[in-house]
Amino acid sequence: MLAARVAERESQIVLGVDPDPGALWPGAGDGLEQDGSPRDRAARLVLAHCRALIDATAEACVAVKLQLARFEVLGAAGWSVLADLAGHARRSGLLVIADGKRGDIDVTAAAYAAALFGGTDTPFGTVEGLGADLATINPLMGRDSVEPFVRAAREVGAGVLLLVRTSNPGAADIEDLPLAAGGTVWERIAALVEELGRPQIGESGVSDVGAVMGATEPGHLARARELMPTATFLLPGVGAQGGRVESLAPAFAPGRAGGLVTASRSIVNAHAALGGDPAAAARSEAERLREAAWSISAGSSAWTEQR
Amino acid sequence: MLAARVAERESQIVLGVDPDPGALWPGAGDGLEQDGSPRDRAARLVLAHCRALIDATAEACVAVKLQLARFEVLGAAGWSVLADLAGHARRSGLLVIADGKRGDIDVTAAAYAAALFGGTDTPFGTVEGLGADLATINPLMGRDSVEPFVRAAREVGAGVLLLVRTSNPGAADIEDLPLAAGGTVWERIAALVEELGRPQIGESGVSDVGAVMGATEPGHLARARELMPTATFLLPGVGAQGGRVESLAPAFAPGRAGGLVTASRSIVNAHAALGGDPAAAARSEAERLREAAWSISAGSSAWTEQR
Repeated sequence: MLAARVAERESQIVLGVDPDPGALWPGAGDGLEQDGSPRDRAARLVLAHCRALIDATAEACVAVKLQLARFEVLGAAGWSVLADLAGHARRSGLLVIADGKRGDIDVTAAAYAAALFGGTDTPFGTVEGLGADLATINPLMGRDSVEPFVRAAREVGAGVLLLVRTSNPGAADIEDLPLAAGGTVWERIAALVEELGRPQIGESGVSDVGAVMGATEPGHLARARELMPTATFLLPGVGAQGGRVESLAPAFAPGRAGGLVTASRSIVNAHAALGGDPAAAARSEAERLREAAWSISAGSSAWTEQR
Repeated sequence: MLAARVAERESQIVLGVDPDPGALWPGAGDGLEQDGSPRDRAARLVLAHCRALIDATAEACVAVKLQLARFEVLGAAGWSVLADLAGHARRSGLLVIADGKRGDIDVTAAAYAAALFGGTDTPFGTVEGLGADLATINPLMGRDSVEPFVRAAREVGAGVLLLVRTSNPGAADIEDLPLAAGGTVWERIAALVEELGRPQIGESGVSDVGAVMGATEPGHLARARELMPTATFLLPGVGAQGGRVESLAPAFAPGRAGGLVTASRSIVNAHAALGGDPAAAARSEAERLREAAWSISAGSSAWTEQR
């Protein structure tokens, strides 16, 4: 599913949708109704901004990554916006990545998975989930906290992305700790990704259990690729966090869908650097990233085939 | 805040509110309107059930723990129920624990914290958060992913509870890994809890950064107390997961508020074992737990003072 979509759209770019209600595009609220509570008005404005952002950049992207925190800030109104945007992204030909970094004991993990993927049964019929194609998962609580997500995703042809080595400086505090048995915490999580993902490797060369691998520490990518030869890597940290597309080549070893390059602030705020209309600047920056990643991924696959 | 409330209510029992829409109390839907979508009808039923559960057991409890996953399953309607229940619990004299196990990079962590604690500024005014008194946090991503929660909590006199050693069998997979430098992953997280919490130790003897310590492995509790002498422990796993109140004594070394005993299924399903009316059975089981924990906590504090 993912590999086919990457090929069809010739893109590995993931638009990070991460709206700060205090820093939306100028003009995003033009023509909106002005009534209602602060919560409802903010939700309406966030929705308009995010739809405009998706419309401006969809052509250069393969997926949107919806940052759940930014919608939860608006409570129930925010969850309505989230569901609307997931539908809008799908209709724009994009995959939907629910970025919530959930993780909990089995029954609770199953509830989170129902909310993000297929839905849940009630005495009144099925209540649909968000319909995500991929969701980020926090594996700290271990294998039995991850498996319900993997199962629920498989039932609907979706996938999961486990946090392995994240893009923030604090990732060093726990994820990088050296283990008595050798390797680090993140390398142990990488092994879990590989264990859980194997049964589903398709002709695409990538499995349905992927990894979040921060683009800010490209030195880790080659090692990560050794440990997880078939996992898709979601690569945050390009742009505002300092990562560069050019250093991501090892991610694409299994093929074009081996890496998904996610960018949020560098796209939405491109007009600050490039000037002009925010939508045009965002489109231009997304297209620049698309070309850079597509080019790197071709070289990397060829390099792997030669080995 | 927590210590005073524990003293006032003479209880360390946390009612886990974890509604499965397919397994609610018989009669919970009596008198409810029957129109609307499956989502709206399920939300109405879940709300009625959870309010009845809180009403039945509030007297024996100090807090409710709202399991966010169970509300997210219902999307926007679920978040409305969540906000309603937080208010209902507060009006019943209970503290509110938001159990979402969130964790993310700094700006995103700040957004989650705004959603759970004080709220967020928008161009239209402040949008209130859930108003939680405590929230569970996943520290895998390190110190800079936790600090925004600590700051946001302190601003409103609330606190956080970091996952340290959880109650599920899979906790052994990552949390128990021995480190090259000695100790385990969970012991390293325990050190982080202690570092972050120290500045706020009040006269109560407990800090505003606590720990989730599963009650299913009581052997860990004494060690955890050495590493985190002033942290409040949230103790899940009593009842359905096999933990026993009697083994929790080390938690109460810093005082009565050193441990919060959370129980979900054992209270809500007490009528299956005890028979009779679900509300009466739940009240009876909550009161039984309250007495057991209160009694253990007295002995433990005395024992500590003698050392």
